[in-house]
Amino acid sequence: MTGLVRWRLDVRYDGGGFAGWAAQPGSRTVQGELELWLQRVLRLTSPVHLVCAGRTDAGVHARGQVVHVDLPDTLVPDDRDRLLHRLRRALPSDVAVTAARPAPPAFDARFGAIWRRYCYRIADQDTRPDPLLRSQVLALDRSLDVAVINVAAGHLLGLRDFAAFCRRRPGSTTVRTLLDVAAERAVGGVFDTVVEVTVRADAFCHSMVRSLVGALVEVGSGRRDLPWFIGLTRSSQRETTVPVLAARGLTLEEVGYPVDAELADRVQAARTRRELPDV
Amino acid sequence: MTGLVRWRLDVRYDGGGFAGWAAQPGSRTVQGELELWLQRVLRLTSPVHLVCAGRTDAGVHARGQVVHVDLPDTLVPDDRDRLLHRLRRALPSDVAVTAARPAPPAFDARFGAIWRRYCYRIADQDTRPDPLLRSQVLALDRSLDVAVINVAAGHLLGLRDFAAFCRRRPGSTTVRTLLDVAAERAVGGVFDTVVEVTVRADAFCHSMVRSLVGALVEVGSGRRDLPWFIGLTRSSQRETTVPVLAARGLTLEEVGYPVDAELADRVQAARTRRELPDV
Repeated sequence: MTGLVRWRLDVRYDGGGFAGWAAQPGSRTVQGELELWLQRVLRLTSPVHLVCAGRTDAGVHARGQVVHVDLPDTLVPDDRDRLLHRLRRALPSDVAVTAARPAPPAFDARFGAIWRRYCYRIADQDTRPDPLLRSQVLALDRSLDVAVINVAAGHLLGLRDFAAFCRRRPGSTTVRTLLDVAAERAVGGVFDTVVEVTVRADAFCHSMVRSLVGALVEVGSGRRDLPWFIGLTRSSQRETTVPVLAARGLTLEEVGYPVDAELADRVQAARTRRELPDV
Repeated sequence: MTGLVRWRLDVRYDGGGFAGWAAQPGSRTVQGELELWLQRVLRLTSPVHLVCAGRTDAGVHARGQVVHVDLPDTLVPDDRDRLLHRLRRALPSDVAVTAARPAPPAFDARFGAIWRRYCYRIADQDTRPDPLLRSQVLALDRSLDVAVINVAAGHLLGLRDFAAFCRRRPGSTTVRTLLDVAAERAVGGVFDTVVEVTVRADAFCHSMVRSLVGALVEVGSGRRDLPWFIGLTRSSQRETTVPVLAARGLTLEEVGYPVDAELADRVQAARTRRELPDV
């Protein structure tokens, strides 16, 4: 009888061809493809189950998705290069595993994560357009004022209720801690002159990043003013005036985890429902 | 009666959907699309004709293509932003004009160019694969030694006959001046860990860059040795042992021109057939 070892996989994908991360019958999903090919490549007789850090929506990309999976311990650590190599040959070209290693038993890709960092990229009127990047950058037929966006963004930081920006699910909270949010016009490199909005939080609700950036774009393009934006941050319900930007501009860039010794504590804390403190 | 003004356009495209630059009946080409949309956007009654710096093959990309075109002088310089904006709305998403400005009458995008710089990008076994870049990076199932490539590359520099690497056309020479050729594994940025081979020359023959890099990859992956490579550089005929790499990895990055005062002289010099000096 073999035991199971927990593995951490680092994953990248072009979300354009997927109906999101989560496996759904009849749809092509990132989870579905990875589970299928892991089982085939390892010649396992029973299905594997992957747990990810960020359940990305249809069309959203990832450069830093993190996943855990329990695999038979006959796969010893020495095999990790071979596992990577075989996955590379087997997987379709729009998804890749960039690293694979055994993780501590307490490692949990979802509940162990301290933060998720997303980047939303926009080619506005002042961006030199690059057709080679069009699958990961939103084309916008307006000009964005990055300084104005950053003034508004400052009102989002900290522990607060993001109800205005979230599709509410029954029984779940829309309280999150936003750690960073900043817009910058890239200088040099392949994204030169693209507006990059980086958002980092402990976790996100469904479509939250695309709504946050949607509201920031309204202000940054002069369509709405700062009082409108500040009103959103104080709302306790979804605001239909907030546009949800297209998925193509959004990429999950990185996920943060504590050091190994603190993994178990973190999982316990994350499973506790987030609440605003009584103040 | 209106006169004509010479314009310079800077152009980018994803070559994947084009049968190359040059207009051909029945094929979708970059030149064909641009000429069609320029005429439509400007509501011209007669066709326009574009001349480019680098006639890229089917599937080859460009971030720094340069083009000249003669347009009616009723299009005054003040209109250039409007021209760019209208082209942006009209053109298909895989080709973009990033700059448009009136040029001196002597400006010739093709014969005025001093050099062309191409980059060939390879994701070898040691590259962290990124599916978001797969349309512009060749996936290679081997490891490349960048230092070995650079030793071989040093043997290509200067004025020489590149017959081994060129599809010969009747009446044309395969003599070129190679100004730079170097491989580097990218550090940081979106191409992190990708091997980038940069080649800069006064001009290139058909499929020359893809053959040069193909030969360098043979040496850099250990399949061939340096004496084989040096033999190629001394050959006066096409060598069928040189693989021509796939077009998807190749991008025309930049074209160099002299200062305006020297434009006319340069055009005259470039029209003269290149020859090896008698030494």
